[in-house]
Amino acid sequence: MKLEIYDTTLRDGMQGAGISFTDEEKFAVIDALDRLGICYIEAGYFAGSDADIAFFDRAAALPLKNASIVAFGSTRRANESAENCEWLRAVKRCRVEDVAIFGKASERQVELVLRTTPEKNLEMIADTVSFLKAAGKRVIFDAEHFFDGYSDNPFYAMRVIETAAMAGADRVVLCDTNGGMLPDIVGMTVEKMCRRFPDVKFGIHCHNDLGMAVACTLSGILGGAVHLQGTVSGIGERCGNANLCTLIPLLQLKLGYECIDASRIGSLTGIARQICELANFDFNEHEPFVGGYAFAHKAGTHIDAVRKSPGSFEHIDPSDVGNRRNMLISELSGRSALAEKMCSIMPGLTKNSPEVAAALAKIKQYEAKGYQYENAEASLMLLLCDALGRRREFFRIDKFQVVVGQPYRSRHTGLLGDGSKCTATIKVTVGDAQEITAAEGDGPVNALDLALRKALLGFYPVLDRVRLTDFKVRVSSVGGAATASAVRVFIESTDGESVWRTTGVSTDIIDASWQALLDSIEFRLMMEHQ
Amino acid sequence: MKLEIYDTTLRDGMQGAGISFTDEEKFAVIDALDRLGICYIEAGYFAGSDADIAFFDRAAALPLKNASIVAFGSTRRANESAENCEWLRAVKRCRVEDVAIFGKASERQVELVLRTTPEKNLEMIADTVSFLKAAGKRVIFDAEHFFDGYSDNPFYAMRVIETAAMAGADRVVLCDTNGGMLPDIVGMTVEKMCRRFPDVKFGIHCHNDLGMAVACTLSGILGGAVHLQGTVSGIGERCGNANLCTLIPLLQLKLGYECIDASRIGSLTGIARQICELANFDFNEHEPFVGGYAFAHKAGTHIDAVRKSPGSFEHIDPSDVGNRRNMLISELSGRSALAEKMCSIMPGLTKNSPEVAAALAKIKQYEAKGYQYENAEASLMLLLCDALGRRREFFRIDKFQVVVGQPYRSRHTGLLGDGSKCTATIKVTVGDAQEITAAEGDGPVNALDLALRKALLGFYPVLDRVRLTDFKVRVSSVGGAATASAVRVFIESTDGESVWRTTGVSTDIIDASWQALLDSIEFRLMMEHQ
Repeated sequence: MKLEIYDTTLRDGMQGAGISFTDEEKFAVIDALDRLGICYIEAGYFAGSDADIAFFDRAAALPLKNASIVAFGSTRRANESAENCEWLRAVKRCRVEDVAIFGKASERQVELVLRTTPEKNLEMIADTVSFLKAAGKRVIFDAEHFFDGYSDNPFYAMRVIETAAMAGADRVVLCDTNGGMLPDIVGMTVEKMCRRFPDVKFGIHCHNDLGMAVACTLSGILGGAVHLQGTVSGIGERCGNANLCTLIPLLQLKLGYECIDASRIGSLTGIARQICELANFDFNEHEPFVGGYAFAHKAGTHIDAVRKSPGSFEHIDPSDVGNRRNMLISELSGRSALAEKMCSIMPGLTKNSPEVAAALAKIKQYEAKGYQYENAEASLMLLLCDALGRRREFFRIDKFQVVVGQPYRSRHTGLLGDGSKCTATIKVTVGDAQEITAAEGDGPVNALDLALRKALLGFYPVLDRVRLTDFKVRVSSVGGAATASAVRVFIESTDGESVWRTTGVSTDIIDASWQALLDSIEFRLMMEHQ
Repeated sequence: MKLEIYDTTLRDGMQGAGISFTDEEKFAVIDALDRLGICYIEAGYFAGSDADIAFFDRAAALPLKNASIVAFGSTRRANESAENCEWLRAVKRCRVEDVAIFGKASERQVELVLRTTPEKNLEMIADTVSFLKAAGKRVIFDAEHFFDGYSDNPFYAMRVIETAAMAGADRVVLCDTNGGMLPDIVGMTVEKMCRRFPDVKFGIHCHNDLGMAVACTLSGILGGAVHLQGTVSGIGERCGNANLCTLIPLLQLKLGYECIDASRIGSLTGIARQICELANFDFNEHEPFVGGYAFAHKAGTHIDAVRKSPGSFEHIDPSDVGNRRNMLISELSGRSALAEKMCSIMPGLTKNSPEVAAALAKIKQYEAKGYQYENAEASLMLLLCDALGRRREFFRIDKFQVVVGQPYRSRHTGLLGDGSKCTATIKVTVGDAQEITAAEGDGPVNALDLALRKALLGFYPVLDRVRLTDFKVRVSSVGGAATASAVRVFIESTDGESVWRTTGVSTDIIDASWQALLDSIEFRLMMEHQ
């Protein structure tokens, strides 16, 4: 059975704290969602400005393969006609073919918030839907506060559905606007509405305030809804919206619904991450299906069991959604996982080899200092090479210095920063040769990165292609002064083909970054010279 | 109706990627959970070492008000008797009164992973439970893979329950070990088991691989389980465990179950955050009930509606769980929310005041440069004071310089860091007086923080009490070289009484940190001199 997937990352998602998109970022999100095979993309709130018209005209003209662009707005106000409503007139002129409008389905909310009468609210809904249908649009009606409204006054809530449907709405979406509904109640209520209005195509729109937006949406689908709304990774206001990256594989792989083309589901993990980056949203590595840890195993007994029987701790094959299994190396993971990793350096090792015990002791020693290798496999590989006596000295740092420029002014003292640069000076030895260089950068880490690669480039030309793509800082500040407590830095690097991650720990952010930088360069050289 | 809450943050939670606890941190977690009123605290895996015995003896002797400490381990192995099982002998000697053991309830997993016969597995369970009961322990039996096992071979899965119960297990906990179950199936299955074994007290243990651990646990409780297991904020392996910080208020406030003493539920938000800090777990600010954004409103229409009718976008009163409503100021939030905030500086402003429009324009201008004020209210207040012409110059920075010391060596080049310090030199003007000072610190930000406060202390003695408690760095690195792209720094400061948050943005981490530091100091001085 086919379901309509409706993405509202660019509208409801954008109402999440800290989320914003430029127009270009919005187009990149639309492109990614279309590639994934999403059916509807709600591209933003349409307030009726010239900028809105220009944006939606451009979006509606995109050569999309799967998706329709939807403009979102409210019903006309109580004190105007649809013909006089500014945004409705604007959206009529706009090329966009699909329009979602929200209207209240709770008598109480009509009185408390709209401060109009229940009858006038019905007229607002009917007029708005009719106006848009007459303008040739497809209309998706979001029945805001439907579930609360149904529990307060079911007769009125059903009149709202009836009004929208009679006026020609193509879909009626039942919304749990404040996120307080239980899955059982959502399921039963949707089922009743499907029975009461057999000709209406219902959708479901849930929020995550009880941590159950996915479960409520699933209940709505099992209850008979054929259209579901949500956002990538559940981005959204308060606790977020229903997470499409969970719902799509759940419905498609576990329950046999057709949400997107089967050939596209393997791109889910990559697209989720890409959109979260565009949204500047901290991707949750524990996210079901698509998180980096979704199929990560740490306890030794679990690692052992997954080897014998993947189903023991994996509910699907990670590759079905483009993800992969990940054996975390830590104090808890035990020797067999470590032995497997070490075999790539020195084949033939087993969990009983003394080298494995020695490496585990070394890992524990670094973990006690605050290092974490679960997200820094390249640093771990260097440590293992070291433990096996297989580490090669590609270069030696003889000395360095960083000077942070001056004058150095802040915006809040009235003077804007003058972009003055940091200067790093580095002296390295490679074999018998020495090299001293300096570089300027935006900040000390950037200056060090540039100076280090400049110093080594003559010896190792491959470093020209290496660049840092991510830089994360984690402070363990419990109980101490934050700027003086241990800092853990993670760096992600690429040479355009492969990607690797390294780490460093220190009380000093520059020192921690420096360790991670050195590991990154060394790891790339090790790959080259294996 | 009373439910037993069983926290496994220190065991199943610790299997989460990146989670680790020292013994002292474990004791702090135990203290916090006991204060919250949790019934059982699973304090870790008990492998039988002397260290385990010492830790659990100490934990069991704590003067806890509400909680019992539970040691966790597996059944005896197939090739040993319970009397010869090392960890069982050790736990018998230990003071801990409650012991949780896991045994497989899936015939398939017994064959694939344990590689023993189904009958032998039943003997292992019976022997282990009997041994522990004879030793005077209370026994919680975790039926691992129960739901998968029940769907493969229900007869065997029920024999496992029967075996554990007949041997004297005090609780039988039904586990969805790989997290792949749907809430409906969990609920129906638990209900059947409660009917089939009316004398058994059942518990429920779910994982979040489908994003439905909370919904599955709720279904289990509604199906008749009286005991539920989970972790603080859902910390755990893969996608995490059932989140107790969601389940407790959900069950208690929405469904009338008694999970913890009613007087303690208001401490939930504070305790969740404290435990996540101890776990070094990135607290999810969008987390239901306890997240900083759980009751945050950003869209202007929502802010307006919540004022008129809180229920429109809040499913409970945030203060019930010790949280609070949060009106986010952003491009989307509109002028009425901003006017309300600005009234604290200049009473009488309305959303139509020209000052409000000017301030909004200024906020948009900074947002376009990458600033975000949603989590940095103190920086926002300074900006608003500025827009209102109410900003006072407490000090002026004339110049500064930071030199990162040398020699500066990394662990991976074989030389350990020598702890060499950074030096910051700062010259400030306060009124007609000038002051020049220097300070050494662990890293440039720490050195600047120390030097700045040292320079100002003679003028503003209150700064002696100010310290930074958190320091977060966010890099917007999409498409660019990571160390040269925009860096957003958030700093949290305290004077021991109040807490405030500031921000800075730059391509340079030191510059961004410096802005946030200056804002922090200035905000505290503004509070003092209002």
